[in-house]
Amino acid sequence: MSRNRAFSQDCTPAVIQNRKMLSRKFSDVIGDRLNIENIIEHSPITAKEKKKVEYDFGKLSVEDIYPKSKSGIITEEFMNELLKILVQYVHKTFDRKSKILDFHHPHQFLDGIEGFSLDLDVGPQSLEQLLVDCRDTLKYGVKTGHPRFFNQLSSGLDVISLAAEWVTSTANTNMFTFEIAPVFVCMETIVLRKMRQIIGWEDGEGDGIFSPGGSINNMYAAMIARNLSCPDVKKLGMKHSPDIVMFVSKHAHYSNSRPAITLGIGTDNVILVDVDNRGRMKPCDLEKKIQTALLNGKQPFYVCATAATTVLGAFDPITPISAICKKYGLWLHVDAAWGGGALMSRKHRFLLRGIDRADSVTWNPHKMMGITLQCSALLIKHKNLLEECNKMEASYLFQQDKHYDVSYDTGDKTIQCGRHVDVFKLWLSWRAKGDEGFEKHVDKCIEMSTYMTNRIKSLEGFELVMDKPQYTNVCFWYLPPWMRTMQKDSTRDQLLGKIAPIIKARMMECGSTMIGYQPLDDKVNFFRCVISNHAVEKCDVDFLLDEIQRLGENLKLVQ
Amino acid sequence: MSRNRAFSQDCTPAVIQNRKMLSRKFSDVIGDRLNIENIIEHSPITAKEKKKVEYDFGKLSVEDIYPKSKSGIITEEFMNELLKILVQYVHKTFDRKSKILDFHHPHQFLDGIEGFSLDLDVGPQSLEQLLVDCRDTLKYGVKTGHPRFFNQLSSGLDVISLAAEWVTSTANTNMFTFEIAPVFVCMETIVLRKMRQIIGWEDGEGDGIFSPGGSINNMYAAMIARNLSCPDVKKLGMKHSPDIVMFVSKHAHYSNSRPAITLGIGTDNVILVDVDNRGRMKPCDLEKKIQTALLNGKQPFYVCATAATTVLGAFDPITPISAICKKYGLWLHVDAAWGGGALMSRKHRFLLRGIDRADSVTWNPHKMMGITLQCSALLIKHKNLLEECNKMEASYLFQQDKHYDVSYDTGDKTIQCGRHVDVFKLWLSWRAKGDEGFEKHVDKCIEMSTYMTNRIKSLEGFELVMDKPQYTNVCFWYLPPWMRTMQKDSTRDQLLGKIAPIIKARMMECGSTMIGYQPLDDKVNFFRCVISNHAVEKCDVDFLLDEIQRLGENLKLVQ
Repeated sequence: MSRNRAFSQDCTPAVIQNRKMLSRKFSDVIGDRLNIENIIEHSPITAKEKKKVEYDFGKLSVEDIYPKSKSGIITEEFMNELLKILVQYVHKTFDRKSKILDFHHPHQFLDGIEGFSLDLDVGPQSLEQLLVDCRDTLKYGVKTGHPRFFNQLSSGLDVISLAAEWVTSTANTNMFTFEIAPVFVCMETIVLRKMRQIIGWEDGEGDGIFSPGGSINNMYAAMIARNLSCPDVKKLGMKHSPDIVMFVSKHAHYSNSRPAITLGIGTDNVILVDVDNRGRMKPCDLEKKIQTALLNGKQPFYVCATAATTVLGAFDPITPISAICKKYGLWLHVDAAWGGGALMSRKHRFLLRGIDRADSVTWNPHKMMGITLQCSALLIKHKNLLEECNKMEASYLFQQDKHYDVSYDTGDKTIQCGRHVDVFKLWLSWRAKGDEGFEKHVDKCIEMSTYMTNRIKSLEGFELVMDKPQYTNVCFWYLPPWMRTMQKDSTRDQLLGKIAPIIKARMMECGSTMIGYQPLDDKVNFFRCVISNHAVEKCDVDFLLDEIQRLGENLKLVQ
Repeated sequence: MSRNRAFSQDCTPAVIQNRKMLSRKFSDVIGDRLNIENIIEHSPITAKEKKKVEYDFGKLSVEDIYPKSKSGIITEEFMNELLKILVQYVHKTFDRKSKILDFHHPHQFLDGIEGFSLDLDVGPQSLEQLLVDCRDTLKYGVKTGHPRFFNQLSSGLDVISLAAEWVTSTANTNMFTFEIAPVFVCMETIVLRKMRQIIGWEDGEGDGIFSPGGSINNMYAAMIARNLSCPDVKKLGMKHSPDIVMFVSKHAHYSNSRPAITLGIGTDNVILVDVDNRGRMKPCDLEKKIQTALLNGKQPFYVCATAATTVLGAFDPITPISAICKKYGLWLHVDAAWGGGALMSRKHRFLLRGIDRADSVTWNPHKMMGITLQCSALLIKHKNLLEECNKMEASYLFQQDKHYDVSYDTGDKTIQCGRHVDVFKLWLSWRAKGDEGFEKHVDKCIEMSTYMTNRIKSLEGFELVMDKPQYTNVCFWYLPPWMRTMQKDSTRDQLLGKIAPIIKARMMECGSTMIGYQPLDDKVNFFRCVISNHAVEKCDVDFLLDEIQRLGENLKLVQ
């Protein structure tokens, strides 16, 4: 039966039976770990077969592992089998010959495909079936670490942060108190300080937190600013607050406008600031709009600048924006979720010039620094504000009469209670690579995108959206041959907007590579390539461009 | 040097040198995975030594693993070494003879202890040092899966969900689109439906999401209800909304009041409902307070009932509460983060009778169902409301012209953008255990807590806070001998309140066991034992009680 593919298929039934009996026998022994050597000594299996000792996982279940079984030998062997599957997947991820995905539609997964069933109503499955499930789950997923995956700002499979995440999940603890996460809480203190130092705040002083993503960090920033502008908001709500308005660039990530909904400010009070032809916020438009808002009796409170926008990778000019914020007394938040990594590069950190003037910064090491998901920090120049915002003083969790310094308990800083340990993978990667390792990572990715830009310029049928990208976002259209001679008008645009989705669908069905597309302002669907995976080489960039050409050159549209 | 403890310590220098050369030689080979057999064939290492082939990780670094090295052999060996450390930790977790923690104060970690330094300014470290770092990080942490860890609602180390979390982190993807998480998105659909069926909603219809914890889910529930009551809130903010008020029991988790801050409602608009002598919300007080609010011109919109409170484990009576909600047209949210697990037990699900009348439910499988952190679901009876609340329609991420059914993209339902894959560990555990496995888990934990309650009743010096707990929360005081004859007055209370923190500090310093304590209403600090780990046996309960006695019986206080 395909759902029960055997893991120990080269064993004869007799050997399996033997082993089964062995495992049963030894799983009854109470006490410490038994190592495989002990078992071998007591078994009739020959030395030659030694390496081959395997359990028949098809006959074993959760009843045979911890905590049901007092002996951990089967637990250990199960973990060993799992590791083989995971290592195999890691090898495939870095193997350019392997497919990025094996595409199926939602209904196919829901109905069950080729023996891979997601059904939960089948009762307890054997350990073997669980291993098959793990393998199939990986098999039908998307290899986001593959060197030809250009689809997302987060890509790559960093082995060190992966290792760290395995440790984190094995530790299975929670960041809310020092009490139950002493090492991780101290690591967070150290990593946040280091990040603040890199931003350029004096002695790395300030505050911060790792939260479940840039969107929540952007919300925290807006919330701190809201609470400063509306001192009674905690108690009385927004109903009795001033008419506050916030300023966000037109090209900012949508999570910078969303807090207006969540926090009860209202989207009418988000004022969008114009961008220049490269997608950067125009400081003059910002000031003009602040003045207009003031004239209309509104109270400006918050400006969000972006360091590397999602689509074009544009860096807003922080220095002039910060001068305006200072002049009008506004909180300056920099959403550097994507661009923050450039701070690690001596060559490229100029892109974020002035970031030390920000009041708060969102910085996602799971994007340009290659850390695995999720790893997102909010850094704040000022102490205590985050806690003042969120403090509930739940005495049953954050007791003040503990025997250690409770200022290390972080639970009252967040809108969460439990909080996942996200810091360890960044800490361990920093130990592995040092500052210089991250610098090399960023420089390499930017170098590859420069290579790509130049390649595109030399290719027929490709058109860049911007001549010289600031970051690793390379945005472009592909035109099939018959479209290249068409006049640039709305008819061509209408057709052009259909090209990228079709090519994207074809590449997903082939499973050869992945890249994103989207429209922006008056521009119809174009490809956006982003490089954050330092496994990407020139050959991968070439492959992507060749593949787009291959999948698109015979593409016809019915008008 | 203690920081560089060798992993290959039984190798002679010559052998290490040999292997180093080998590893260098083979890491230069470009191509697919090399297996250890190939290396052995080309090496002078004898068959006897075969099993012992190890790399000198002290001489290797991130430059020798993927993606820098084209050959994955060292990556694979590094993962193998890591697995040994993790498996060792798992064995220790289930070994009652091992300590739960090796306590150190924050400043000790920050300064560095016994060669375990958290310093990030030391440049790139060897692979060996990284392995040592992983081992030390686990060594100085808290074994939350130890059968004598009673400190938190989340405890235990479920091997299947741990395995699943390793798979999840290896897949390293993001829940926002079907495109990059096809399998996980479909699993979420299936698991959420199953959970809704268990709640009792017709055909499991409705909506839901996994989010980073119960607190955020409770906020989502309040937000949906807020947006229904204030139809213009997305656009205009709370300033132009009615005077809404919400009702929460005095013993509810603080995350049910916090949305009043975050969402701009204001804590003055959280009306606390009285509880009975077992900590359950009084429906009559709820109705009285709704009527008073209406008389004061307020607009009630939301009632939060709790299924198992954090401290006492009390279940609010959902059926009468839901009748009141129906009468006044209020949204009923049930925070069953902790109690939801009881739905899996035919014997105990009566505790949540009426839950099918709720509009939304928070349910954390990472609590009573033993799933590792984090795994928290919000279930909603009504479709589309979550998306209507949060929708931003970011065209650069959630394109509508994709080639698959984009209704499976979940990004517009959340306040996040990227979202961690939390579903796989629950899905895989369900496959492993079936409904019956979770039932056994819950029944066992409740049985252990009943045993504990009875033991406490029989012991001198112990006093139960409540005679008959509803759930696995067993709350009690311990009185040292000299206190037992004191009159029950404020003088005794003042002293009694100091006992639990001192005993807790002592047990943490011994590292023998862990249990929480807190004050509640007029009750001074008492111990709260919670059992959610099905590894807990009677001997562990006995151990805890003995240990409290041992650490407390000679305790003297200076008045």
